[in-house]
Amino acid sequence: MRVDGRERHQLREVHIEKDYIKHPEGSVLITVGETKVICTASIEDKVPPFMRNGGKGWITAEYSMLPRATETRNIRESSKGKVTGRTMEIQRLIGRALRSIVDLEKLGERTIWIDCDVIQADGGTRTASITGAYVALVLALSKLWEKKVLTSLPVYDFLAATSVGIDEELGPILDLNYIEDSKANVDMNIIMTGKGEFVELQGTGEEATFSRKQLNELLDLGEKGIQELITLQQETLGEQIASIILNNK
Amino acid sequence: MRVDGRERHQLREVHIEKDYIKHPEGSVLITVGETKVICTASIEDKVPPFMRNGGKGWITAEYSMLPRATETRNIRESSKGKVTGRTMEIQRLIGRALRSIVDLEKLGERTIWIDCDVIQADGGTRTASITGAYVALVLALSKLWEKKVLTSLPVYDFLAATSVGIDEELGPILDLNYIEDSKANVDMNIIMTGKGEFVELQGTGEEATFSRKQLNELLDLGEKGIQELITLQQETLGEQIASIILNNK
Amino acid sequence: MRVDGRERHQLREVHIEKDYIKHPEGSVLITVGETKVICTASIEDKVPPFMRNGGKGWITAEYSMLPRATETRNIRESSKGKVTGRTMEIQRLIGRALRSIVDLEKLGERTIWIDCDVIQADGGTRTASITGAYVALVLALSKLWEKKVLTSLPVYDFLAATSVGIDEELGPILDLNYIEDSKANVDMNIIMTGKGEFVELQGTGEEATFSRKQLNELLDLGEKGIQELITLQQETLGEQIASIILNNK
Amino acid sequence: MRVDGRERHQLREVHIEKDYIKHPEGSVLITVGETKVICTASIEDKVPPFMRNGGKGWITAEYSMLPRATETRNIRESSKGKVTGRTMEIQRLIGRALRSIVDLEKLGERTIWIDCDVIQADGGTRTASITGAYVALVLALSKLWEKKVLTSLPVYDFLAATSVGIDEELGPILDLNYIEDSKANVDMNIIMTGKGEFVELQGTGEEATFSRKQLNELLDLGEKGIQELITLQQETLGEQIASIILNNK
Amino acid sequence: MRVDGRERHQLREVHIEKDYIKHPEGSVLITVGETKVICTASIEDKVPPFMRNGGKGWITAEYSMLPRATETRNIRESSKGKVTGRTMEIQRLIGRALRSIVDLEKLGERTIWIDCDVIQADGGTRTASITGAYVALVLALSKLWEKKVLTSLPVYDFLAATSVGIDEELGPILDLNYIEDSKANVDMNIIMTGKGEFVELQGTGEEATFSRKQLNELLDLGEKGIQELITLQQETLGEQIASIILNNK
Amino acid sequence: MRVDGRERHQLREVHIEKDYIKHPEGSVLITVGETKVICTASIEDKVPPFMRNGGKGWITAEYSMLPRATETRNIRESSKGKVTGRTMEIQRLIGRALRSIVDLEKLGERTIWIDCDVIQADGGTRTASITGAYVALVLALSKLWEKKVLTSLPVYDFLAATSVGIDEELGPILDLNYIEDSKANVDMNIIMTGKGEFVELQGTGEEATFSRKQLNELLDLGEKGIQELITLQQETLGEQIASIILNNK
Repeated sequence: MRVDGRERHQLREVHIEKDYIKHPEGSVLITVGETKVICTASIEDKVPPFMRNGGKGWITAEYSMLPRATETRNIRESSKGKVTGRTMEIQRLIGRALRSIVDLEKLGERTIWIDCDVIQADGGTRTASITGAYVALVLALSKLWEKKVLTSLPVYDFLAATSVGIDEELGPILDLNYIEDSKANVDMNIIMTGKGEFVELQGTGEEATFSRKQLNELLDLGEKGIQELITLQQETLGEQIASIILNNK
Repeated sequence: MRVDGRERHQLREVHIEKDYIKHPEGSVLITVGETKVICTASIEDKVPPFMRNGGKGWITAEYSMLPRATETRNIRESSKGKVTGRTMEIQRLIGRALRSIVDLEKLGERTIWIDCDVIQADGGTRTASITGAYVALVLALSKLWEKKVLTSLPVYDFLAATSVGIDEELGPILDLNYIEDSKANVDMNIIMTGKGEFVELQGTGEEATFSRKQLNELLDLGEKGIQELITLQQETLGEQIASIILNNK
Repeated sequence: MRVDGRERHQLREVHIEKDYIKHPEGSVLITVGETKVICTASIEDKVPPFMRNGGKGWITAEYSMLPRATETRNIRESSKGKVTGRTMEIQRLIGRALRSIVDLEKLGERTIWIDCDVIQADGGTRTASITGAYVALVLALSKLWEKKVLTSLPVYDFLAATSVGIDEELGPILDLNYIEDSKANVDMNIIMTGKGEFVELQGTGEEATFSRKQLNELLDLGEKGIQELITLQQETLGEQIASIILNNK
Repeated sequence: MRVDGRERHQLREVHIEKDYIKHPEGSVLITVGETKVICTASIEDKVPPFMRNGGKGWITAEYSMLPRATETRNIRESSKGKVTGRTMEIQRLIGRALRSIVDLEKLGERTIWIDCDVIQADGGTRTASITGAYVALVLALSKLWEKKVLTSLPVYDFLAATSVGIDEELGPILDLNYIEDSKANVDMNIIMTGKGEFVELQGTGEEATFSRKQLNELLDLGEKGIQELITLQQETLGEQIASIILNNK
Repeated sequence: MRVDGRERHQLREVHIEKDYIKHPEGSVLITVGETKVICTASIEDKVPPFMRNGGKGWITAEYSMLPRATETRNIRESSKGKVTGRTMEIQRLIGRALRSIVDLEKLGERTIWIDCDVIQADGGTRTASITGAYVALVLALSKLWEKKVLTSLPVYDFLAATSVGIDEELGPILDLNYIEDSKANVDMNIIMTGKGEFVELQGTGEEATFSRKQLNELLDLGEKGIQELITLQQETLGEQIASIILNNK
Repeated sequence: MRVDGRERHQLREVHIEKDYIKHPEGSVLITVGETKVICTASIEDKVPPFMRNGGKGWITAEYSMLPRATETRNIRESSKGKVTGRTMEIQRLIGRALRSIVDLEKLGERTIWIDCDVIQADGGTRTASITGAYVALVLALSKLWEKKVLTSLPVYDFLAATSVGIDEELGPILDLNYIEDSKANVDMNIIMTGKGEFVELQGTGEEATFSRKQLNELLDLGEKGIQELITLQQETLGEQIASIILNNK
């Protein structure tokens, strides 16, 4: 039995609250068990210098934790004067993942800024961020489309992420909370689309390794969890938007 | 009539939700109209170097806004690599104010870290932070006292803050929202105790000045608003804690 | 009796030496008791990005202390790689105050850089900086006017600052030196115009509070001190410039 | 046919030159096609603060490119004053990978600093760094063992890394050079041990996705390439050290 | 004729005002023509980490210019967040020079902080800083000696600096002001002791070169100027201290 | 006898390997005894802001050491977040020296970036960097000339550098290695042209001084060493380029 009573293949309870914050073009509060992340999408009418005059848009992400999102207080990165390596890795991952299911040419020379701010952390903050940020992004793009700034919704698939890992006693498990994550030998983040394709796969076995057979078991668990998350995303966004995305590309 | 229909001497609707975040020793979500701030209090069992071996405790505060708490997205201070002057001013103000009503000797060699994170901004974020942080602080200190780490609750007064200003047409007004703040000629933040004494007074008339008579009208409005906020703090903290604080000193 | 023999309502000896430094458009050395500050005003023919094409000018201030202006040596902010919160607060205060008595539209798209460098500190460095910087600013603007770059002197009032505080034994006192400032329960900086209006009011009672009655006594003292400082500014600038300013607006 | 005439499953020519630099405890120059990396291992007789008094050692890595290792000159990170996200990701990856095959308890409270400096880049610099750094690390540890500072060689497996990717025309390919990497739809870095277990798997399909079937083809290619790299490592280190590692654990 | 009417071998007018600032252990205002530098010496009762427990003292220097010491305003290094290369070179030069004539063992484990702050610049700020800092240093050390903290004055020679250069029309000239420095083909800073030995020699011919013969002419001029500066230092410090230094070593 | 068996007036063995790195327009590996530096020259088709529209080119240099180029590991400047004073001094020196023998007007509005990366250090890294960088620079400029971007080779002299110093027992010595440098009383870097003129002279006697006579002996040694280095540069660049440079100006 898992520490919180779940089955090995069971996600934690997940909620996605739309329009959580008033100002951004798109925003959600995503809750995965005790992990809570505010995800917002902001539209800027220009692209970074390296993309100018290319006719394409850009999506970039920032990730942060409130200092006391965690068990013990973390020093703010603004006080340290620099962003840690962990934060940079996560930011790059979120941005890269979201860019994979958006038609950047149809977006035009605009930047979508994704902000994922963890207000309470209990494991899986980067995968919750991706799953939530996807919804915030679609909300913001829908607004552009409704305003006829865009002639179509430039999103051609769903996208969600979860973690899987190997517990020494239980074997492969889905959606690790903080305690499980601390004990796991192997930890893997999986990002997949609604069509069941991989967007990103990051598996690591610090002070441990894993076999090809174990990898396959982990991937099976991950696929199942992501399908459930995508179903929730579809419900949150509503039937109309969901069917447009399903029919794109 | 004010832009949101209030009377000149009327506060916006204020809520203080206790224990909003799971990990910190004390936490609240304070809502003042459309302004929302998460305030947490974290206890550390040591003091900064300049206070070591003095037998006294310390209270320090940090303040931040989510990038999209505002109408347009702000660059994160962690990305800029430095904290702005405005943030520093606010952090210093919050810490100074809270230290004025805590008995730092009874606190002992401990630091209380106050974190005020604005998740939605509509004017008055610094005063809402102080009013909310006071409650988070008392919650954290109560926990130390309940655990018998402290032999008494080292808080000897209530403390709340609000803003007042002069509108060109309406004259002095209480608790300015963002639109009012942008238009006001004079802007003043007032921090007062439950006993009606001033802790801090910061009035500024950028591109304007104000007379002694106007100052007095502003102070009258501020006193009234702060009394209402302190009543709400007492309700939030509960009768038992409120009466202990009232009887201290 | 005060530590340096002054009456409670007495300023320290104040001198303002014009044209102290050769290169700047305006410069003074202001001496308030043992506090000495070099104030310079430099003219730049453009405004910061956020003000471009608005037809208005800007005034911004920087403040610093020589490392050994104080009793013990301070680390240079350039060595630390960042400006402290205290410095930022003071810089913002000086700039804001000076902007309140200048007609920024008549100034045109120019920036006046005010630099206040404390070469010896004995309390009241920020208020001495403001009083001195005002004179340096007017000198620089007069030069623009004499050269016919400006068609009038765009200054419509005098401006000076002083501190007041509450000494535990003596009660309210004017113009605190370092020793007095260290002991005072309440410390207030007041910035006023020649017409007797407030520009800025910052009162704080760290580890203490103050009543409305005490506030009024402090304001009385401050008004008196500022009138004397403004008389000295008028003498320093000379009758011609003084009367132009008095007649403006 | 690939751009440089290789077969799809063929590594570029690889050389590992031992003891390339005079001062470090271990050093190599690894050449993979046109990619050249100097890898050094330096021993420090203490561990970082978070590990003190735990009786375990630590391995940490730094990675950098000479400004002109690449086609166009890159600004030095020391000039920028900060390390980019890409560099941080690579550094963390190298350190994590090497820690997975070293017995940190047998290492004792020592830190091994791995430095990977790319002097010429043509794709695959991070995987070449890991493959080379492994050899530098073993050389440094052997020296500690020869000097009887360690009672055994605390390395219990070989470790090498390579990249695989999907070319739009050729399909899955092994060990991508810069041109191939720029064009590839999917890019995956694989780190494996001599026993054929995964240590880290990072697959990403920016602006593309990949199926489970494609994943399996990529893993087959990667396994083959890594076996060849490990054979080269064994030759470089010599039979004696190779057999000790093979017999460990 | 030189631009300011001097002979080729003539120094500008030089003044050294002792005890210019109240707090530091030693301080002077040195004036060389229109160049004015405040030099202070501060004593700290410990040495930097790399010198601890070596029984020797240390002398370190910092150099800065007020933003408007120069014709056009310079951005403060504290605002830039870093010290420029030029400043670092000068700081290192001043510290190195002063250490060469102090017996660091007799100084004991103390650091002397030298601060040279240029309040008005007209060429030769670094050499004026050295000549002035020497006097501030001796004043501070004398104070330690008078208080019997030191059993002798640990200074065994005088030390002064000047610049020489080659003017295209006039040939070699002594003590260049800003205009001369801007035009000079070759610029050399010379630091010498009272006994006529070199401590430091830095000659550079940006976009020009100089012959061995020209070098000799420059050195002759420099020696003459430095002797005059040392005579002034002796007068400033007074006969008693001067004769102690002359008799040391 | 010197520590490595050389005569007092003898250089270490020197090699210059052309085109050591593939991407840069010019590159060499220079080996001076055990000191090894990669020098590259990169061409950028613009000049820094302060030179724009002046019709002249610019040469700027950066210098760095691999962390383990030295006996003990140095912290990377990118990790520290800033460049040390020593590095800045060396960078400025290299750039200044190279600019002295290039016709910047004939270069046109281009910047040549010189990068000197020390991969192994044993004394004399800055002088080896200059001697090597000169060759890399000429190689890059020749390429521009061969491509007819420049109508002539804008280099009008050779340029090399070496160090000289005073050993307590041996007296003046040429080209100090690390051990000799650590022990030397006086250390001087000399940069000269093929025509035997000085470009830069930096002599320092930390905790020591030197006489005019000693200076002359040091200069004699330096001249001899530099002539030998220039002969090697001529051989490396080949007769054709050497004779063009000799005939320029």
